Amino acid sequence: MSSLPHIVIIGGGFGGLHAARALAGAPVRITLLDRHNYFLFQPLLYQVATAALSPADIASPIRWILRRQRNVQVLLAEARTIAPESHRVTYDSGGRAPDGGQALTYDYLIVSTGARHAYFGHPEWAARAPGLKTLDDALEIRRQVLLAFEAAEREADPDVRRRLLTFVIVGGGPTGVELAGALAEIARQSLVKDFRSIQPESARILLLEGSPHVLSTFPEKLRLAATASLRQLGVEVRTGAIVVDINDEGVRVGDEHIAAETVLWAAGVAASPLLASLGVPLDRAGRVVAEPSLTVPGHPDIFVVGDACSLKQDGAALPGVAQVAMQGGAHAAGNVLRAMRGEALMPFRYRDYGNMATIGRGSAIAAIGSIRVSGFAAWLIWLFIHIFSLIGFRNRLAVMGEWAWAYLTFQRRARLITGERMSPGSANVERGGQ
Amino acid sequence: MSSLPHIVIIGGGFGGLHAARALAGAPVRITLLDRHNYFLFQPLLYQVATAALSPADIASPIRWILRRQRNVQVLLAEARTIAPESHRVTYDSGGRAPDGGQALTYDYLIVSTGARHAYFGHPEWAARAPGLKTLDDALEIRRQVLLAFEAAEREADPDVRRRLLTFVIVGGGPTGVELAGALAEIARQSLVKDFRSIQPESARILLLEGSPHVLSTFPEKLRLAATASLRQLGVEVRTGAIVVDINDEGVRVGDEHIAAETVLWAAGVAASPLLASLGVPLDRAGRVVAEPSLTVPGHPDIFVVGDACSLKQDGAALPGVAQVAMQGGAHAAGNVLRAMRGEALMPFRYRDYGNMATIGRGSAIAAIGSIRVSGFAAWLIWLFIHIFSLIGFRNRLAVMGEWAWAYLTFQRRARLITGERMSPGSANVERGGQ
Repeated sequence: MSSLPHIVIIGGGFGGLHAARALAGAPVRITLLDRHNYFLFQPLLYQVATAALSPADIASPIRWILRRQRNVQVLLAEARTIAPESHRVTYDSGGRAPDGGQALTYDYLIVSTGARHAYFGHPEWAARAPGLKTLDDALEIRRQVLLAFEAAEREADPDVRRRLLTFVIVGGGPTGVELAGALAEIARQSLVKDFRSIQPESARILLLEGSPHVLSTFPEKLRLAATASLRQLGVEVRTGAIVVDINDEGVRVGDEHIAAETVLWAAGVAASPLLASLGVPLDRAGRVVAEPSLTVPGHPDIFVVGDACSLKQDGAALPGVAQVAMQGGAHAAGNVLRAMRGEALMPFRYRDYGNMATIGRGSAIAAIGSIRVSGFAAWLIWLFIHIFSLIGFRNRLAVMGEWAWAYLTFQRRARLITGERMSPGSANVERGGQ
Repeated sequence: MSSLPHIVIIGGGFGGLHAARALAGAPVRITLLDRHNYFLFQPLLYQVATAALSPADIASPIRWILRRQRNVQVLLAEARTIAPESHRVTYDSGGRAPDGGQALTYDYLIVSTGARHAYFGHPEWAARAPGLKTLDDALEIRRQVLLAFEAAEREADPDVRRRLLTFVIVGGGPTGVELAGALAEIARQSLVKDFRSIQPESARILLLEGSPHVLSTFPEKLRLAATASLRQLGVEVRTGAIVVDINDEGVRVGDEHIAAETVLWAAGVAASPLLASLGVPLDRAGRVVAEPSLTVPGHPDIFVVGDACSLKQDGAALPGVAQVAMQGGAHAAGNVLRAMRGEALMPFRYRDYGNMATIGRGSAIAAIGSIRVSGFAAWLIWLFIHIFSLIGFRNRLAVMGEWAWAYLTFQRRARLITGERMSPGSANVERGGQ
């Protein structure tokens, strides 16, 4: 078996998993590295952050997903460096074990390391305004949001209470819009009967977007429909609102100070710092400017996929969505097989199956080819596409059950504050150390 | 409203919640304090620790449970001291908020603070051998168990690998037996296809009990049936096994050293340190030796319930089970109403509805009155009693769905390593700081 070509895949997200699956049955041995033991269905992560779903509803162990594909070995480990000359990847599998700091040698390498938050040159904002990329991020946001309501219930001073019940979301892309809509529903529907000293429905939810439009990748008609839906839910939507500071008290937008306990970051992303070790040109977001075949310039045995890859198609940059990563992963795997057979690599061509975002209970927008849908019909489309994209029949059933229940009762079942820390203040301090 | 008698309840577990519910509609105002925002159905906590259920399946927000009972205010806060002379409870609601270190004045106080782990004079074992009392404990155990398999998959040295795949459970009561059975099922069924370098089914699971019997509160016939079921699952059951040391390498039992990465504690419990501030005699486990009316000696306005209370009935100590807490909470509430009306307090009388424990998939034991059942029939009884005791119709449906799925497929869906730490070693270090 060890004489077979060794393919190393870094990252078990949409890109890495589709690359591995496309190599099922091929005469190769594959090692897939991920720093988490689970594949995460990121499009639904905001539902965990807003207490509608449990982590296990949207995440499955990578080794379980690949259990029947005998040519893959999964390693729980974080890749540290790539050395293209020696064809080596070093990785860290944590702490005390004697294997800390090991290395793998590859024949072909597929890098699909995704994106993380970027704070536009203000790393100090990270401790104050968590972003939403991992399950731990989602649980942290859930904790902070629920704790803010708890602290308000105990608070006598109306100004402090007002500040505790003000939630600011920075960034008006799909994640920001989905978070804002879900927070408005929590405050105005789920929590209404639960408190005695406060009216949760008086909570203020602000969505701040620096550009002139929220959901700027959507056609104008759908953008306007989404904005109207958000306003109907009670979200204050502000466009052209440039955040100049985030501090303990709240957020500064131009000259205005907005006092807020909870600030969530949905504005900027950057690629993994691992890519810098390749020693090739990166774009502004830290992604590798790839060849059309998805290879790294000068390294035909290394492929970059999804958010690790910067590529233009018909003059426009490919968007950072799951579809691009899935198609890219499968394409890179195909090119690996072509290279093994001595054939020419094929250029990648992304097929856009559509673009959608959800605003709240029974409301979404969808642009599929030339079709534009908004409202309940779009939400139904969104619902079925997302349920059927989940991995595992069981997850689909569970999520469908949760949603049916939440829809009928306005409730959010996963409203648990876990993590052993009670105060919003101390949480921020601890987060800063991560 | 503030002229109504103020009843403070400390603890939102089985005891506190039943006390609050028994006072629904009464002319009182109630404040219920808990350091968590959720009620936890502790009898199923081992199912979260062993990746079968998600936290939200067995926990519900306390304020949601009590949302319609308008005479209760719920506070997320940890009680620090009780001052019986001034009728005051001080509490800490955490960090930065200006309300840190506040106090409540009560007319009647019901203390239902439950139990925590006790390490028989070895507090240093806590960092190495986590117990199972809270959701965070369960998630930590889940993390450690799953990480041990991951580390074994990466490990080349067969001795180290053997140590990584050895799991020791200290304590052969219901929790220890349930954990051992569930771990054996994970290793021999759920994970079988997932790994490439190790055989998960070769994992060694040891259940150590210091007394001559596991499940010593059950009749002999059922104890033997349970032991046989455990052995059939591949658990090494050792009785009369006194643990003399737990260290980085493993566990020492008498002269024998057992090398084990994962050590779980299910042996001893103690009451909350809060009770010491009452200044009354406590028993060996730190519980208040209560009057038959559940009042604290010398303080007829303070009641102790469940694991906070030591009481004998017909010569035997009441057991630390949910039924005792539930009945005690309701009884204390009844006595509060009697005291308000100037009537004599009634002595508490526990009605034993039965005692059961589950060993694994389709196997349990039950002693109900003079009936003794073991095997599948007992498991069905256990299943239905536990499902129907869960709070909320939704939780019942969800848990039933999870179990049906797990039973049919041998799978455990919640196998997620969360908490941002990758190595078993570093986890132990961090836990020590908690």
